[in-house]
Amino acid sequence: MKLEKPHTLKELSEILNCSFVGSPDHLVEGINEIHKVESGDLVFVDHPKYYDKALQSAATTILIDMEVDCPEGKGLLVSSDPFRDYNKLTVLFSPFYPWSRSVNSPKGVSPYAVIQPNVSIGRNVTIGKHTWIHSGVVIYDNVHIGDNVVIHANTVIGADAFYFQKKEDHFRKMHTCGRVIIEDNVEIGALCTIDRGVSGDTVIGESTKLDNQVHIGHDTVIGKRCLFAGHVGVAGCVTIEDDVTLWGQVGVISDVTIKSGAVVYGQSGVGKDLEGNKKYLGSPCDDARTTFTELASLKHLPALLRKMKD
Amino acid sequence: MKLEKPHTLKELSEILNCSFVGSPDHLVEGINEIHKVESGDLVFVDHPKYYDKALQSAATTILIDMEVDCPEGKGLLVSSDPFRDYNKLTVLFSPFYPWSRSVNSPKGVSPYAVIQPNVSIGRNVTIGKHTWIHSGVVIYDNVHIGDNVVIHANTVIGADAFYFQKKEDHFRKMHTCGRVIIEDNVEIGALCTIDRGVSGDTVIGESTKLDNQVHIGHDTVIGKRCLFAGHVGVAGCVTIEDDVTLWGQVGVISDVTIKSGAVVYGQSGVGKDLEGNKKYLGSPCDDARTTFTELASLKHLPALLRKMKD
Amino acid sequence: MKLEKPHTLKELSEILNCSFVGSPDHLVEGINEIHKVESGDLVFVDHPKYYDKALQSAATTILIDMEVDCPEGKGLLVSSDPFRDYNKLTVLFSPFYPWSRSVNSPKGVSPYAVIQPNVSIGRNVTIGKHTWIHSGVVIYDNVHIGDNVVIHANTVIGADAFYFQKKEDHFRKMHTCGRVIIEDNVEIGALCTIDRGVSGDTVIGESTKLDNQVHIGHDTVIGKRCLFAGHVGVAGCVTIEDDVTLWGQVGVISDVTIKSGAVVYGQSGVGKDLEGNKKYLGSPCDDARTTFTELASLKHLPALLRKMKD
Repeated sequence: MKLEKPHTLKELSEILNCSFVGSPDHLVEGINEIHKVESGDLVFVDHPKYYDKALQSAATTILIDMEVDCPEGKGLLVSSDPFRDYNKLTVLFSPFYPWSRSVNSPKGVSPYAVIQPNVSIGRNVTIGKHTWIHSGVVIYDNVHIGDNVVIHANTVIGADAFYFQKKEDHFRKMHTCGRVIIEDNVEIGALCTIDRGVSGDTVIGESTKLDNQVHIGHDTVIGKRCLFAGHVGVAGCVTIEDDVTLWGQVGVISDVTIKSGAVVYGQSGVGKDLEGNKKYLGSPCDDARTTFTELASLKHLPALLRKMKD
Repeated sequence: MKLEKPHTLKELSEILNCSFVGSPDHLVEGINEIHKVESGDLVFVDHPKYYDKALQSAATTILIDMEVDCPEGKGLLVSSDPFRDYNKLTVLFSPFYPWSRSVNSPKGVSPYAVIQPNVSIGRNVTIGKHTWIHSGVVIYDNVHIGDNVVIHANTVIGADAFYFQKKEDHFRKMHTCGRVIIEDNVEIGALCTIDRGVSGDTVIGESTKLDNQVHIGHDTVIGKRCLFAGHVGVAGCVTIEDDVTLWGQVGVISDVTIKSGAVVYGQSGVGKDLEGNKKYLGSPCDDARTTFTELASLKHLPALLRKMKD
Repeated sequence: MKLEKPHTLKELSEILNCSFVGSPDHLVEGINEIHKVESGDLVFVDHPKYYDKALQSAATTILIDMEVDCPEGKGLLVSSDPFRDYNKLTVLFSPFYPWSRSVNSPKGVSPYAVIQPNVSIGRNVTIGKHTWIHSGVVIYDNVHIGDNVVIHANTVIGADAFYFQKKEDHFRKMHTCGRVIIEDNVEIGALCTIDRGVSGDTVIGESTKLDNQVHIGHDTVIGKRCLFAGHVGVAGCVTIEDDVTLWGQVGVISDVTIKSGAVVYGQSGVGKDLEGNKKYLGSPCDDARTTFTELASLKHLPALLRKMKD
C-alpha cells in the first residue's frame, strides 16, 4: 500500500523507537511485502537467510533486525522485532475498526464482543469479550466461544452431525444435542463449518487458527496452536493434539488420533493414527520421506519396464 | 451431555418401555457416545462386535439390544432398537424447536415449513411441509423443495451453471434457466452449492444426505438414499444412481454415470463411468482392491530398483 | 425446460433471423441440452463432430450451423452461431431480471449495479456498473470491483490473510490492510473466498471465471480469462498468468508462478512453478503425459514383483 503522504526515515524511527541507517530525510512512500515492493517502499526482513534478497530488492527502506551495510541510496530501520514493528506501521497507516458494535447484546454475549450485521445466533450461546463475529456468520444452539476469538464471514458454527443409520429404504438421523466449544484466541476463516457434538463436545483449542473453507466434524477435539490451511476436512470423532499443522486440502477420516507436533502436507489423506513430531505425505499418507522415495522411484518404473521387456 | 438432574435406571426403562438389568435406583447422570463416555454416563450399542467395548467402557449404563451379563456396579437397558431409544432420550433431554416460524409464508412456501432469519428466496420457488431452511440459505429462482427436507445454514441452491464458451479474447456465458428439484426427506449440510440446470433439472433424489461443503454441478441427477461426505465435488451433467456413497473430498468429472450401490473412498477422482455395487479408490479411481494392490507394490519399488542396480 | 406454449419452426426462424429446413408448422415444445432432450425439444449443436448425435437424439428440432440432411419428421434451424441463438431463445422464454435494485446506492457503488438483499459492504469499496452482487455476499474493506462482474450468493471477498508467526506459545497475526481488485467481466461462483492482500493487492484479472467454493489466498494475482473449477484452492502470493485452466479440487502452494495457457487436471497439486501452454497432472503434478505413463506403468508393477519373486 502507498502511504497517504511520505514519511522520513527519522519520523518512522521515532514512531518505532528504533535506530536507523541512512539519510534522516530519506522518504518512505509505501509499505509492502518482499514479492510486491517497488521503489519508495519499505519492506521487512527478520532472518539472515533473506537479508540479501530484501536489501537488493526494489524496496528503498528495509526494516531489519541487525545493523548491516546499507546499499547506496537506501535506508535501514534497525528493530529488535521487525514483524511487530511492521504490524505497528500498517495498523498506524490503515487502522481497522468495527463496522458496528452490538449495543444491546443478547444474553450470553459480552458487551465487548463485536457482532456485525446479518449474524444469526441460536439459543444457549455465549460469546466472550473482544471476540469478533463477522457478517453472515450463523451460530446454532449450544455454542460457547471464548475471548479474543475472530470468526470470519459466513462461517457456520454448530450445524448437525452427519450421522445417519441405514435402514431398509431410508436413513434414520441421530439427533444432535451436543455443543461446540471454541477456546480463547482462536481464529476461524470465512466459510468454515464446525459441527456440534452428537451428545458430547466439538472443541477447537486455544490459539488454533483455521484458514477458509475448513470443515470440522462432530465430536472432534482439536488441541492448542494448530494450523489448518484452506479446504482441510476433518471427519467426526477425531482427536488432534497440540501444535499440529495440516496443509491445504488434507482430509482426515473419523475416529483417528493425530499426536502433537505432526505436520501433514497438502492433499494428503489421514487414514489411521499418526505419531507426533513427524511429517506425513500421500493419500493414504505415510512418513513423508517414505512417500517421497516412492514417488521418486515411480519415475524410474516406465524405463525399468521397458528394460525388462528387452 | 450431562442431564439437568440424574434419572434412575427404572425411570428410564419406563420412558423407553424396555426391561433393565441392575439396581432400579442405579443413577444415569449423562448421555454420550462411546469415545466420550465417563462414569455416570449412558452409552448405546447395537452390534455384538462392540458389546465388550461398551460394557467395559467408563460408561456405567449401557443401552443394548440383548440381555448380557452386567458388569458389577453397572446397569443395562435392554431395548429392541438402541439407536431409536438413544435418540428418544436425547430428544427428551435436549428438545430442539424452531427459532422462528414463517407466519406469512411467501407464495409456494408451505405454512408448515420453517424458514429461519436471513433466508433469501427467489421467484418460482416451492417449499414443502415440515421442511426446515436454516439461516442464511440463498435459494435462487426455479427451485422446488419437497417435504421433510433440511437445508443447513448458508447453503446456496440454484446458482448459475459454470458453463462458458471460449471466444477469441473473452468467454460467452450460457444463460441458466433450468431448475433444481430436491425430493422429500433430503438433508443438505451447511455451505453446500447445488447449481440450477442450464435448461433441464438438477435433481437430488429422495432420502439422499449431503454433508457440509458439497458442490453439485448443473443438470446433475442424483438418485435416492445416496450419502456424500464433506467437500465432495460433482461436476455438471453427471448421473448418480441410488444408494451411492462418496466419501470425503471425492471429485467426479462431468458427463459420467455412477451405478447403484457404488462406494467411492475418500479423495478419489471419478474420471469415467463406474459399475454398481463395487468399491473404488484412487485418482483416477479403479476397483479398490486393484488400487490397494498397486499402492502396496509401490512400497516395494525402491528396494527393487536398488537391487536391479547391483 | 418446456415452453409455455409451443412455437412453430417458422416463428423461431423469424425470431432468430435464420433459415430452416422442415415443415414451417413443425412444433417446438421445449428447449434442452443434448443429454436431456426428449421428443418436442430443440437442441443445439455447433461442431460437425456432434452433428450425428444431435440429429439422431430424441430432440425433434436441431439448431445447427450447417444445412445438413434433415431426419424424417424433424426440423432444422440453420444459424451462423447456434450457441448465441440458443441463449437468445432461453433468455426470451425465461427472462432473468433483478430481484431488487439498489436505489440509494452506498458511496462508491454504481447506481447501475444490482445489490441483492442481505449483502454486507465494508468501507472503501467500489462496485462498477452492471455488476451483480447476489444475496448474502460479504465484502470487507478495501475491495474494488469492476463493471459487468457477477458475484454469486454467500461469497466472501476480502477476509484477512492467513498469515501467522509462531511464537513460543502462541501465534502473532500479521495485520491485513491490502486490497482486493476484481477486474471487469469477472464471474465468481457461490461460496468462494478471496482474501485481501496483506499490504498489497489480491487481483482477479479481466474475464476470469471461478466456479463455486474456490479459495484464493492473500496477494495472489490472477490473469485474464482463467477458468477455475469447483473447490480449487490457491494459496497466498501466487502468480497465475492469462488463460490458465485449473480443474476441480486443484491445489496450488504459496509463492509459485503458473505461466500463460497452462492446464492443470483435477485433484492435482501444484508445488512449483509451471511453464505455460502445457498440461499437468498428479500430486505433486508433473507434465500430464509423464504422469499418465507412470500411472500406466504402476498397473504392471504387481505382476513384475510376482515375476521377480519366482
